[in-house]
Amino acid sequence: MKINNIGIIGATGAVGKEILKVLEERNFEVDNLKVFGNKSKGKPIQFMGKEYIIENVDEHSFKDLDVVISAVSSGVIKEIVPYIQKSRAVLIDNSSAFRLREDVPLVVPEINKGEIFNHNGIIANPNCTTIITLVGINGINKLSKITRILASTYQAVSGAGIEGITELESQINAFSNNDKLVKKVFSHEILNNLIPQIGDFDDMGYTEEEMKLLNETRKILNNPEIKISCTSVRVPVMRSHSVSVTVETEKVLNIQDVRNEISKSEGVKLIDDIERQKYPTPKMSTDQDLVLVGRIRRDISTEGINLWCCGDQIRKGASTNAVQIAEILRG
Amino acid sequence: MKINNIGIIGATGAVGKEILKVLEERNFEVDNLKVFGNKSKGKPIQFMGKEYIIENVDEHSFKDLDVVISAVSSGVIKEIVPYIQKSRAVLIDNSSAFRLREDVPLVVPEINKGEIFNHNGIIANPNCTTIITLVGINGINKLSKITRILASTYQAVSGAGIEGITELESQINAFSNNDKLVKKVFSHEILNNLIPQIGDFDDMGYTEEEMKLLNETRKILNNPEIKISCTSVRVPVMRSHSVSVTVETEKVLNIQDVRNEISKSEGVKLIDDIERQKYPTPKMSTDQDLVLVGRIRRDISTEGINLWCCGDQIRKGASTNAVQIAEILRG
Repeated sequence: MKINNIGIIGATGAVGKEILKVLEERNFEVDNLKVFGNKSKGKPIQFMGKEYIIENVDEHSFKDLDVVISAVSSGVIKEIVPYIQKSRAVLIDNSSAFRLREDVPLVVPEINKGEIFNHNGIIANPNCTTIITLVGINGINKLSKITRILASTYQAVSGAGIEGITELESQINAFSNNDKLVKKVFSHEILNNLIPQIGDFDDMGYTEEEMKLLNETRKILNNPEIKISCTSVRVPVMRSHSVSVTVETEKVLNIQDVRNEISKSEGVKLIDDIERQKYPTPKMSTDQDLVLVGRIRRDISTEGINLWCCGDQIRKGASTNAVQIAEILRG
Repeated sequence: MKINNIGIIGATGAVGKEILKVLEERNFEVDNLKVFGNKSKGKPIQFMGKEYIIENVDEHSFKDLDVVISAVSSGVIKEIVPYIQKSRAVLIDNSSAFRLREDVPLVVPEINKGEIFNHNGIIANPNCTTIITLVGINGINKLSKITRILASTYQAVSGAGIEGITELESQINAFSNNDKLVKKVFSHEILNNLIPQIGDFDDMGYTEEEMKLLNETRKILNNPEIKISCTSVRVPVMRSHSVSVTVETEKVLNIQDVRNEISKSEGVKLIDDIERQKYPTPKMSTDQDLVLVGRIRRDISTEGINLWCCGDQIRKGASTNAVQIAEILRG
C-alpha cells in the first residue's frame, strides 16, 4: 500500500521520539507528517530537516493519513481508535490494548511478518520483553519446537517512559549529592535497588508484564500449547532490557547447532565468546536495533538450553519494530 | 567448646568488618581478640570499647586462639591454613577453598547445624547466594523433597568486596558530574549496566558462581541427585543479593501451604502481600540478617513454585552465618 501520509501519536514520549528518529535513519519517505501529543500542543519538532507542530488529536485528525503509529497507553489509544477507524489509516499500536484481539495481527517481523497483511485496520506491536526474548530464541524454535520458556527479566527504567529515565537520573544525582532520593514513578527507590513488580497483579500472583510474555508468545509463535513462566524485575538500567531464559524443546538440541542457528537469526547479534569474556550487556545493546544473545549453554538441570539476551527496549522493543511493520506494509 | 580467644583474618575487608560488628551486636564474649590484615598492619580498630591493632599473619599467630574466622580469598587462606592447623583453633572459613572437601562441614545453621560438630578443624561457610537461596526455600524442602532448582540471580557489587562498593559509588559520582566512568574491579561498567559473569567459566559454559549453587546445595541438603541450573548476574545494587527461583518438588504442593511453611522458616521473613504491593527488595534486606521471601506463586509452566528472595550478602550471606556457626560451636 502507499504510505505517503503518516501520523505519530505520542510523538514527544520516549518511544514517540525514537519512532521519528528511526523513520529518519531508515529514510522512510513521507509526504505529509502529523505529530500528535497531549501536553505539548503547538510545540515545534524537527523531522528530516522540516519543522512540524504538535497537534492535539480530534475526530478529523486522521482523515488524510495512510498509517498512524501510536506510542500512547492502552487507555488513551482506546479513546482515539474510533477516529482512526473512521479514516482509511492503518493503526500500528504499541500499547497492549489490541494485542490479543483475534482480528489484530501481533507482529515481530523477524518471526511472523506474513501476519501483517491479515489486518483489519489495526496491527499490534508486542510487549518489549516479548519482542526481545522471541527474536533472541527464534533460532531455537526453527531447530525444534519450543515447549517451555522460563524467563527472569532485568528491565530498564525506560519501560516507564521518559519519566522512568528521569527518575533514575535524578536519584543518581541525589545519591551523589547526599540528598534524599525522591520517588514518583516507581513504587520503591530504583537506584541501587530492584523492584519485582511491573504492572498490576492477577489472581495467580503474576503481574501484567509477566502474563504478556505468556499470552503474546502463544499468539506470535502460533503455539497455544507452549508453557511459559516469567518473573519480571525492574532494574536500575537506563534503556535496555535483559532476559535470563531457559528454553525446553521437543527434540534435544546440540548446543553448537543452537549457537550456529542463533548466529544466523534475523535481527540477532551473537556475542558468545566466553574465553574472551564476551557476552551481551544492556549498555552494549543500547541505541541500536539488534537483540544481542550470549551465554548459550546446556541447562544442566534438564536437556534444555540457557541463554542471556539484551535489547534496546525503546528501539527494537518498540519503535523499530513498529517502523519495520510500516515498511513491510508499504511493500 | 570454650571460645574465649578469637581471631579474624581479613578484618578490614567488607566481610571482616561486618564479622566484628555482628560479634558486638550479638554480645559474643571474647577474652582475647586478634585481628589480621594484609595491608593495614599497625592500624587500630575498635571492638566492644577496646582498641586492637591489626597484625600480619605468621606461623605463630594462632597458637592461643580457639576459633579463627577468615574472610580472605581461597588463595590466601590456603597459604595460611597450615599455621592454623598446627594450633588448636577451629577455622570457620568464608572462602570456597574447603567447601567441597569431604572432611569439611558446609553449614547453613538454619538447615544443617548438626554437621558443625563433625569438623576436623575446618568448617566452611557456603557461598552467599547459596545461603540466601537455601534459607529462602528451606521450608519447601520440608514439605516435599526439592528435585530441581532454576535460579537467576541479581547480585550486589559487595560480592566483590569494598572495592566493588567503591567502584559503583565512584561511577555514580562520575555519572552525576558528567565524568567518564572508570572501571577496575568489574569487567564492564556496572552503573546502569548488568554483567552476566561472576567468576571464571568452565568447559560447560557455566561460571564458578553458578556451579557453587549446584555443588554446595547438593552437599548442604545432602541430596546429590538434586538438579540445579543457575545464571548469575552482577547488578548495580550495593550489598544485598536477590534471586528469582523456580523450585520443583517430588509432590505437588499447595501454594498456601508453601507460604505458611516459609513464613515459619527459621531465618526468613515473609513479605508477600501483593494486594498491598509488598514483596522483598534488596534495599529492604540490607543491614539485617533475615532472608526476605515473596512473590510465592505456582510456576504456571509446571506444577512447581516460583518465588523471589533477597538477603544481605555481607551479613547472612557471609558474616552472620559464620558467627552463628561460632555460637553453635561454643554451645
